[in-house]
Amino acid sequence: MKAISVLGSTGSIGTQTLEIAHECPDQFKVVALTAGNNLDLLIDQIKKHQPEVVALAESKNLPELQKRLQNLPNKEKPKEIPHLVAGKEGLQIAASWETADLVVTGIVGCAGLLPTLAAIKAGKDIALANKETLIAAGPVVLPALKKSGSRLLPADSEHSAIFQCLQGTPFTDTARLSTGVPTPGLRNIQLTASGGAFRDWSTEALKNATVKDATSHPNWSMGKKITVDSATLMNKGLEVIEAHYLFGLDYDHIEIVIHPQSIIHSMVELTDSSVLAQMGWPDMKLPILYAMSWPNRVETKWKRLKLPEIGQLTFRDPDTSKYPCMQLAYSAGKAAGTMPAVLNAANEEAVALFLKEKIHFLNIPKVIEKTCEKHKQDLKADPQLDDVIEVDTWARQEVKSLVEKGTDEITMSTIGE
Amino acid sequence: MKAISVLGSTGSIGTQTLEIAHECPDQFKVVALTAGNNLDLLIDQIKKHQPEVVALAESKNLPELQKRLQNLPNKEKPKEIPHLVAGKEGLQIAASWETADLVVTGIVGCAGLLPTLAAIKAGKDIALANKETLIAAGPVVLPALKKSGSRLLPADSEHSAIFQCLQGTPFTDTARLSTGVPTPGLRNIQLTASGGAFRDWSTEALKNATVKDATSHPNWSMGKKITVDSATLMNKGLEVIEAHYLFGLDYDHIEIVIHPQSIIHSMVELTDSSVLAQMGWPDMKLPILYAMSWPNRVETKWKRLKLPEIGQLTFRDPDTSKYPCMQLAYSAGKAAGTMPAVLNAANEEAVALFLKEKIHFLNIPKVIEKTCEKHKQDLKADPQLDDVIEVDTWARQEVKSLVEKGTDEITMSTIGE
Repeated sequence: MKAISVLGSTGSIGTQTLEIAHECPDQFKVVALTAGNNLDLLIDQIKKHQPEVVALAESKNLPELQKRLQNLPNKEKPKEIPHLVAGKEGLQIAASWETADLVVTGIVGCAGLLPTLAAIKAGKDIALANKETLIAAGPVVLPALKKSGSRLLPADSEHSAIFQCLQGTPFTDTARLSTGVPTPGLRNIQLTASGGAFRDWSTEALKNATVKDATSHPNWSMGKKITVDSATLMNKGLEVIEAHYLFGLDYDHIEIVIHPQSIIHSMVELTDSSVLAQMGWPDMKLPILYAMSWPNRVETKWKRLKLPEIGQLTFRDPDTSKYPCMQLAYSAGKAAGTMPAVLNAANEEAVALFLKEKIHFLNIPKVIEKTCEKHKQDLKADPQLDDVIEVDTWARQEVKSLVEKGTDEITMSTIGE
Repeated sequence: MKAISVLGSTGSIGTQTLEIAHECPDQFKVVALTAGNNLDLLIDQIKKHQPEVVALAESKNLPELQKRLQNLPNKEKPKEIPHLVAGKEGLQIAASWETADLVVTGIVGCAGLLPTLAAIKAGKDIALANKETLIAAGPVVLPALKKSGSRLLPADSEHSAIFQCLQGTPFTDTARLSTGVPTPGLRNIQLTASGGAFRDWSTEALKNATVKDATSHPNWSMGKKITVDSATLMNKGLEVIEAHYLFGLDYDHIEIVIHPQSIIHSMVELTDSSVLAQMGWPDMKLPILYAMSWPNRVETKWKRLKLPEIGQLTFRDPDTSKYPCMQLAYSAGKAAGTMPAVLNAANEEAVALFLKEKIHFLNIPKVIEKTCEKHKQDLKADPQLDDVIEVDTWARQEVKSLVEKGTDEITMSTIGE
């Protein structure tokens, strides 16, 4: 029986994690939850999973949560009211809760960084669904992992696929996991990408892309921000950086393959030329479950994958001219230090502005490129946590001011060429 | 450095094994060779690899080999003339040669059984490319493996694929390898089949199938017998039986998927619904190398597999009415005991008669079915080696006499329906 903390329990990853815990009561026990403003759902989760501790991101919601839990009818009340905490400190208390074996980090964006680091310092194993932890703060996280001996278990589909394919190699020795040392026998990683909402659009047609177009993903049901990232292929670019930190390979050995059916979730190419692939329906529950159950496999009754039902799987190289974000991510990854943090923050801000219809889809890469370009002079090669947070704040501000200035290149009315 | 014995060194598996040893002189050293009548090639191999012992299948060739080795010009002579042996006993001496770590068994058919058992008894690890060892003699081989602690490492592409996908599971514990105990976490095996020479022929068109048609394989370059087995799908049926013995799964959990491109070499489906696949170009050298190098991966410069170059992979369920041999193999596997040995021998004989144009392609399954049917009354559930050899001999004779009798159903001129 593994004791699990769920950071971001009311979000997409969090709710799926709790579904799994509910499906496998012999395997998992939930001891800690953290959430934002969705008190209704959080209270349901508390009733169902009876955690030992609950943390709210914002202190102002704490009195209401306390009151509503106290006022529950007796038959709905948890056996024991959980320990309630709030704010940054509260999140860190929940993330490092003593009885937890594994912390599932489903908090989106840089907000997940501090609690994840707290969990690492407490020596917990981490099921990592929060990309930003490694992308923005890889140089801070890797030494922390080494120091505490805690292990990063990827819970997103691509990195889980690679992780599954690497079982049985020396990679899965505790010491090698996420220490940035390449695993013996591994030559290349091939990350698959659905190609996103615009995979069948011409570069020319993209000039007419709307918010609605960009937020309609063909395969995966995900949040709006990540669906736009999928349409720009920035999502895949960020995964390349994450794979670099997780599996210790040079960027020249991490490739992207467009695979519209999203059945092969990624592949590894070994030194003897053998290729291993992990497959499944496009459903986040499987990679989350594997991160929770590793090194074991848990029995599920989920729908079987039978390739004859699908008929064909197709593959093509990504069109670099259509997806400039991909190249920006490779460049930021190679620049290393604080640059990936700037890329990530600039992208978050640019996508937010696109979703508010403040900039055009084709200008997302433009503002990111300008911001990264400007950061070059201030890049820190070996940053501390404060440096990461500082450049994150700077990059967001920089994107906003670029757009406010309204230069020809990046306003809504014009499309960058 | 691993010391290797190669049984059947002048055959297809043998020559590829020696190519690998030549490519990787830091990894492998050849200490023993066995061969049949191809003395020219054998002498070249002796000059190149300088084995410690060489065995000939037939004693009558021994004097000529001795003479020709003695008479080699000095600069071509091996540093030391190897120890030369011959006949059944000679093969067993070479197979259990003291300095060998691993024995690659490339002898085709039942002739490979005795030397493979000798190697197992001597505690050698076995790179198994000889299907008959397990199919005909599974009930004899499994206890022998358990007793000596030697391990069967599959060297054919499908079982190697499964073996590669199972790395990191408890399957690869020595104790579980080929002991017939299912590995925890493994739910189903999906063996891929190219569909063979007739995959795009209608059942009706098969009435006109000739020897030339049946021996033209679309993907793999192999011997004639195995190419016909690929056209009947008996090859895949035999692999189902082999997979049953190797990986300990019930027949209901071993499936066949038609995959015309032969890029995915087989798949495993784990209990949590995750599917792992191993891929590569259709080339036997990779599975042979993996069996030789396991548990390590050796660096090669072989052509990289890039799926965008292939474009698409397709999959369909096999047509059971078109491929009756497949069902015969499942039935023989489930009948167990001596039945798979009868199936295998009847198939070898029927294919030989087809290649001599004594029976029609569509009558191959007919004679096999009749032979298996007749064996039911004599089936031994827990056979010894002698029983296996006896039913093998009986089944071959039975097929011949069925054809000689020339019943309507199985002659060249009529096509069974």
